[in-house]
Amino acid sequence: MKFRTTVRPDDPQRIRDIVTSTGFFYDHEIEVAVELCEENLAQGEEKSGYFFVFADDDDGRTLGYACYGEIACTRQRYDLYWMGVHADARGKGIGKQLMKETDKAIAARGGEIVYIETSSREKYLPTREFYIATGCVKEAELKDFYDNGDNKVIYTRRVR
Amino acid sequence: MKFRTTVRPDDPQRIRDIVTSTGFFYDHEIEVAVELCEENLAQGEEKSGYFFVFADDDDGRTLGYACYGEIACTRQRYDLYWMGVHADARGKGIGKQLMKETDKAIAARGGEIVYIETSSREKYLPTREFYIATGCVKEAELKDFYDNGDNKVIYTRRVR
Repeated sequence: MKFRTTVRPDDPQRIRDIVTSTGFFYDHEIEVAVELCEENLAQGEEKSGYFFVFADDDDGRTLGYACYGEIACTRQRYDLYWMGVHADARGKGIGKQLMKETDKAIAARGGEIVYIETSSREKYLPTREFYIATGCVKEAELKDFYDNGDNKVIYTRRVR
Repeated sequence: MKFRTTVRPDDPQRIRDIVTSTGFFYDHEIEVAVELCEENLAQGEEKSGYFFVFADDDDGRTLGYACYGEIACTRQRYDLYWMGVHADARGKGIGKQLMKETDKAIAARGGEIVYIETSSREKYLPTREFYIATGCVKEAELKDFYDNGDNKVIYTRRVR
């Protein structure tokens, strides 16, 4: 597995494939995931505020990615906006490696804490377990945030 | 007091005056407040996602404003990004009227819940009291969110 932080023109399409393959996202969420990458390509990472880490296999096929950015009006706090591993490549520890690489990239920019948000729905139990397994702490839960009966769970992790 | 939701070319400068006069914001926060209004003027409110309510006195002088927008990937949840009343016009209930008008504007767009975030610092105690007085509920507090020792307090209010 190789990790890269430069974004390529075909990455938006690959992100669409990855995010769609997981079965975890609504169509409008998939569009947002793709748009963040397009913004990066159009404006550059600093101006867009969207930074990426991609995990490529030895054939150069992108199997997973993470997208993060600094939270405005905070001192060195970052949001993990998105992450996904292709359904074909699950169970190989790619997600955990991606988290480690992302923490390193955030720390290299001077970041201290990363915030990660996810849904309280039953479907996202493995996601929440994954965040706990990667050293996150559950910080808060906002009732009915996404929709009635669908809370936002907020995790944090110190990256250095 | 008259309320308007259309943004005028001189509003970014007036927002700078208002936000600066309050003494509540850091320079980089003032820049963000101004930028949201410039984005609205450059792209239109729908594309920018930043909507405004301004409070003008009878001479047309803008004394306060609120800025809000829909939260991506939620069903009818809104963020109150910013609000401020000029220091010269405090204590006249303009803030409360602005909140009412903003709730109405959000409800007219189909919004259900508005989220409001502020700092836990001592300086912001009047701000936090203001939100409680306008019907907000404290939903969560994120430790060290803005900086070490500076938590984010999250309030919610149902707008309909």
